Amino acid sequence: MAETLSQQALGWAARDTSAVFSPFHFSRRANGAEDVSIKILFCGICHTDLHFAKNDFGTTTYPIVPGHEITGTVTDVGSNIENLFKVGDRVGAGCMVGSCNAPTCEPCKEGSESYCPNVILTYNSVYHDGTPTFGGYSNIIVVNYRYVVQFPEKLALDAGAPLLCAGITVYSPMKYYGMTEAAEGKHLGVVGLGGLGHVAIKFGKALGMRVTVISTSSHKEREAKELLAADDFLVSKDHQQMQGAAKSLDYIIDTASAVHPIEPLLNLLKLNGKLVFVGAPVKPLELPIMPLLFGRKMIGGSLIGGMKETQEMLDFCGEHNITCEIEKISIEYLNTAMKRLLNSDVKYRFVIDIAGTLK
Amino acid sequence: MAETLSQQALGWAARDTSAVFSPFHFSRRANGAEDVSIKILFCGICHTDLHFAKNDFGTTTYPIVPGHEITGTVTDVGSNIENLFKVGDRVGAGCMVGSCNAPTCEPCKEGSESYCPNVILTYNSVYHDGTPTFGGYSNIIVVNYRYVVQFPEKLALDAGAPLLCAGITVYSPMKYYGMTEAAEGKHLGVVGLGGLGHVAIKFGKALGMRVTVISTSSHKEREAKELLAADDFLVSKDHQQMQGAAKSLDYIIDTASAVHPIEPLLNLLKLNGKLVFVGAPVKPLELPIMPLLFGRKMIGGSLIGGMKETQEMLDFCGEHNITCEIEKISIEYLNTAMKRLLNSDVKYRFVIDIAGTLK
Repeated sequence: MAETLSQQALGWAARDTSAVFSPFHFSRRANGAEDVSIKILFCGICHTDLHFAKNDFGTTTYPIVPGHEITGTVTDVGSNIENLFKVGDRVGAGCMVGSCNAPTCEPCKEGSESYCPNVILTYNSVYHDGTPTFGGYSNIIVVNYRYVVQFPEKLALDAGAPLLCAGITVYSPMKYYGMTEAAEGKHLGVVGLGGLGHVAIKFGKALGMRVTVISTSSHKEREAKELLAADDFLVSKDHQQMQGAAKSLDYIIDTASAVHPIEPLLNLLKLNGKLVFVGAPVKPLELPIMPLLFGRKMIGGSLIGGMKETQEMLDFCGEHNITCEIEKISIEYLNTAMKRLLNSDVKYRFVIDIAGTLK
Repeated sequence: MAETLSQQALGWAARDTSAVFSPFHFSRRANGAEDVSIKILFCGICHTDLHFAKNDFGTTTYPIVPGHEITGTVTDVGSNIENLFKVGDRVGAGCMVGSCNAPTCEPCKEGSESYCPNVILTYNSVYHDGTPTFGGYSNIIVVNYRYVVQFPEKLALDAGAPLLCAGITVYSPMKYYGMTEAAEGKHLGVVGLGGLGHVAIKFGKALGMRVTVISTSSHKEREAKELLAADDFLVSKDHQQMQGAAKSLDYIIDTASAVHPIEPLLNLLKLNGKLVFVGAPVKPLELPIMPLLFGRKMIGGSLIGGMKETQEMLDFCGEHNITCEIEKISIEYLNTAMKRLLNSDVKYRFVIDIAGTLK
């Protein structure tokens, strides 16, 4: 019975709130009939990984192996899904490795698995079989086929890895809130120029939109424009600049997780404009109601995205040749990278060269 | 030149912030080629009328003749629009009597005249010809045909009058935010049981929705259910009741203008739920971002509605036999009515019997 045998895995884990990572030996389940086994080649470092490693949400179970921006190649395919995957396929796994898939579950039915109340995250969750889930800071992973996506031939697996979290997190709301329809010529604002923000710019440009970056840091302007092809740059603290751009934007994707004022952003929106949060400030923000009424403006939020949409996003990226701006690191550099991440000292995503450096 | 002659009108005006109303003689313009002259039969009293009479917004020009829920019959039709209106037509005029109609004005082009930056309100505005606008607490009014709607034969002109503000103010967002599509079986929450709220219940029921009223006042429950056919009633301060109804609503129309917490309302919404403000709390509300992300919930606002939509709303009301619950008063009762309105002592709208009592 192959299913009862487990696979030995090597990862790097944090063992306590110090969030210091070190090598960690553990087991993955044997490849089941609906599973795909993946040799991990690359894994992006999301800020959420650091939050979990430090137990910022109070929900961490140690040891924790983070990582949910996973790319690699298929090494084993379950007997029921041989028509869907084959050994050697270039694939990705993102933030989820399971959900209830019950026929009564609205989110699962509509392909919005990230909103399933029983979603199983790629790490720090408990899998259907009662075992803890461990993420992509490791050499192999076994994932139910529903949560594995095919990577377009064109896209590099290293620079493409962060698309599996940062990419889908901005793509999904752009689609859900109607920004991708008749996008040509529309004007998108992007608040925050980090992992999520820099992908949002690329998506906006690929859709034919004019893109304005709104940032607290004026020194990011040059790179936003020259490297990322943003059209305009606003320093959010510069009242005059912000006033000058009043009513100019159709949409804003807000990736900032620090507490920040909403009203100046609402003022940037045209009539019927939409402000969508994908970052998660922990304290409530001040919401003035009048601008919502007088400009019929809307505020929304979004959390990651579903699997079907993740595949669609990757295909879109393949078509438009979109990957992320990354700094590729060895696993030995992980603890240094985490320190730098804490200081927002990364352009724009660390990606761990797992296969090349985790031995 | 008939256009240069004016028409003598009689209204009731407030002359200062005491907001005491008394008879007021003034002129209306002669009926122009694109105008409709209306003998006013009824006019609803909106809380906004009182705000303006008291100069609560700091923008009032005295004397002020409020009233923007106007019904009556046509007495004169301009030469250019004889195919659209005829003498004797039962018509209504609402919150606006003009907008720029420029071919470059997005709101005007898309029929969202209430968002035109140059919208001319029915009272306390300045008309194209430089004269002040006076509202429906008066015996006659002259209105450009674009801002006059035909009243369905079936609908009473007294109980129907408040539809022209309260009605369109809730109908427009229901349409814009998608609540009218596939509405059958959906679940609508209505915050606040006043002029706007009671119409929202009726619209919800007419659309086949289950309707829950959310109110601070438990004593309103019986009437909400028995008179207005609401299905459920939640006392917003009753934490247990509110928790029990968590994730049960698809939409909420929030008509409350007092500062109130948003989070308990967001908790009532299902995944993808929508909370829309039509009331205008003057101070910012506290907006927690996490519920927006985890439930992909949306917050919007809306202001009145456009003219085409107002006609559509009236036709919808004609079809479903929807009018408002009113207390019909004489013009002599106006000052008493205003006092009662200040204390929310009205079910659910005062309507002045203009033709019957203003002499």
